[in-house]
Amino acid sequence: MKDVADAIGVHVSTVSRALDPKTSHRIRPEVIEQVRQVCRELGYRQTATAYSLRPNRTRTVGVVIPDILDPFFAPIIQGAEYVLSEHDYLATLANVGGQGSREAEILDGLLARRVEGLMLVSGALPEEAIARLASEETPIVTLLRTTDDLRVSTVIHDEEEGIRLMLELLVSLGHRRIAHIAGPQVFSSGQNRYRAFEFHRKRLGLDLSSALVCFAERYNESAGEQCAEALAGKGMTAITCANDRLAIGAITALRRRGLDCPRDISVTGYNDMLYADRVLPALTTVRTDQYRQGVEAAEILVEMMETPPDEREPQHIVLPVQMVIRDSTDVVRG
Amino acid sequence: MKDVADAIGVHVSTVSRALDPKTSHRIRPEVIEQVRQVCRELGYRQTATAYSLRPNRTRTVGVVIPDILDPFFAPIIQGAEYVLSEHDYLATLANVGGQGSREAEILDGLLARRVEGLMLVSGALPEEAIARLASEETPIVTLLRTTDDLRVSTVIHDEEEGIRLMLELLVSLGHRRIAHIAGPQVFSSGQNRYRAFEFHRKRLGLDLSSALVCFAERYNESAGEQCAEALAGKGMTAITCANDRLAIGAITALRRRGLDCPRDISVTGYNDMLYADRVLPALTTVRTDQYRQGVEAAEILVEMMETPPDEREPQHIVLPVQMVIRDSTDVVRG
Repeated sequence: MKDVADAIGVHVSTVSRALDPKTSHRIRPEVIEQVRQVCRELGYRQTATAYSLRPNRTRTVGVVIPDILDPFFAPIIQGAEYVLSEHDYLATLANVGGQGSREAEILDGLLARRVEGLMLVSGALPEEAIARLASEETPIVTLLRTTDDLRVSTVIHDEEEGIRLMLELLVSLGHRRIAHIAGPQVFSSGQNRYRAFEFHRKRLGLDLSSALVCFAERYNESAGEQCAEALAGKGMTAITCANDRLAIGAITALRRRGLDCPRDISVTGYNDMLYADRVLPALTTVRTDQYRQGVEAAEILVEMMETPPDEREPQHIVLPVQMVIRDSTDVVRG
Repeated sequence: MKDVADAIGVHVSTVSRALDPKTSHRIRPEVIEQVRQVCRELGYRQTATAYSLRPNRTRTVGVVIPDILDPFFAPIIQGAEYVLSEHDYLATLANVGGQGSREAEILDGLLARRVEGLMLVSGALPEEAIARLASEETPIVTLLRTTDDLRVSTVIHDEEEGIRLMLELLVSLGHRRIAHIAGPQVFSSGQNRYRAFEFHRKRLGLDLSSALVCFAERYNESAGEQCAEALAGKGMTAITCANDRLAIGAITALRRRGLDCPRDISVTGYNDMLYADRVLPALTTVRTDQYRQGVEAAEILVEMMETPPDEREPQHIVLPVQMVIRDSTDVVRG
């Protein structure tokens, strides 16, 4: 560092600041460029370092979530924000607010402000739009959504495993006629959980009636209520829901019809979101470690942002899930 | 517009875009400056317009919240984000994450990225720090926190009224020995609600014992549990809590001691956050319109951001509150 400082004629602390991504924003871009130049001449060059010292960095990351009102996303954001701030990045949170059509517009706004990376949490963006985004230089990591585009890093959890565990639990309690409130099929989580439900109910020899499946239009309580109404009279003894909010809604609708959960019908959630243990009855659900998802995704993204585009290696992580048995499931009676 | 376009020698659509804050980011700053100049020469100048057309705008707003895991903040963010995006601003959400010490650092990060306005939601920032921020050009609106600095706009709700309504409800149910789980006193909401509790319990002739007050260290469920433990054996028939999460924790701790809410002890929340109606028992609470708080604060901030610093007039809004009576309160028995 002293060599570099002497060569340029600045104080050694300036070189130190210019080389540290956490402090380089305090140094003029021309000086950073000069430091970079001299490092290169003196043989101190590291590609990633040089790349991370490029001028005019914004050190911001766009985090796009479908609906901030859904408490499920909070721990993901917290985990991501923790890692990003450790690396001196600022997370710009953008909320699609349940209107999928806004997603593309929001992404344009983020790119226009030169975010250096994108975290897309779930999201209903079509594959073509993902491909178009991926062809830009901005690295992307998606959470809770799969994509065919190999330039994009992904962090998901094992959805097939979650549904398998849930159906096996219900079978062990004597259930055979099990319904499914599927999530919106524009989300890969809705698709994957529904597919896993179809696969495993066949494998387990359960009732395969299509009348036992209802597709929710949203991932919220009122969609859960509507689906439970639609499923009423179909004779199921249990309802598996694609997320906890659908389950909470379903329980509310059943109660209105005089049906008690779990005495009359078992209901299961998915995700183990905040408050899944505080509602009545406390939900039996599949725990996905949301905080860890945020942490893993942010770590991948930071690595991608500090690496030149042609040297990046997208990563694909599948996190394990875990059953949480509480009060909303019981043995079949009568 | 045609006059201006002709004078500069650009297409009229360029002038139109340069004049519209929603599209001006697509036009080069030099051109915007030229348009502004010619408008001025031709007598089309409006101060606010000229100000809003200043070059190098980031059109981002920093939204600082104490804890993203608290579902209470979600509708505030949603309301603010709705208004900001309507005006083509992007909300950068920054989460203090329950560590008050990070707040100043986060604000530095936002200012270094040239946010054009700051929304501080609640927050434990000392008055001196607020004063220092306010002396910069960046306009500030605080939500749920009062400040002595008149350069800062504020949006609060009527906390004294909320506590008054709650105590009067409990008195009407026969309660006289009423405890209070106060919020952290670093937050003005914690201070204001505690002060209102002291004022109105005196006015209503209730038991004034200081043993009936417990100060929570955080605004969360486990702090509520700790305080309920500390209050056990103090002989109260009701506990008013400074927010819903404290109430949920208090109910959990009471249940562990074999005390039923509301049969043995009534417990009240504050805020009517998401899920306050889904927990067991559904909470009697004070509803504050969180979405509207976000909307009002964002509207004030947009107006401030579009106005030159010396012409800004900070606003101070106090929103009304409303009682929501559910299942966690009952008449005194025995």
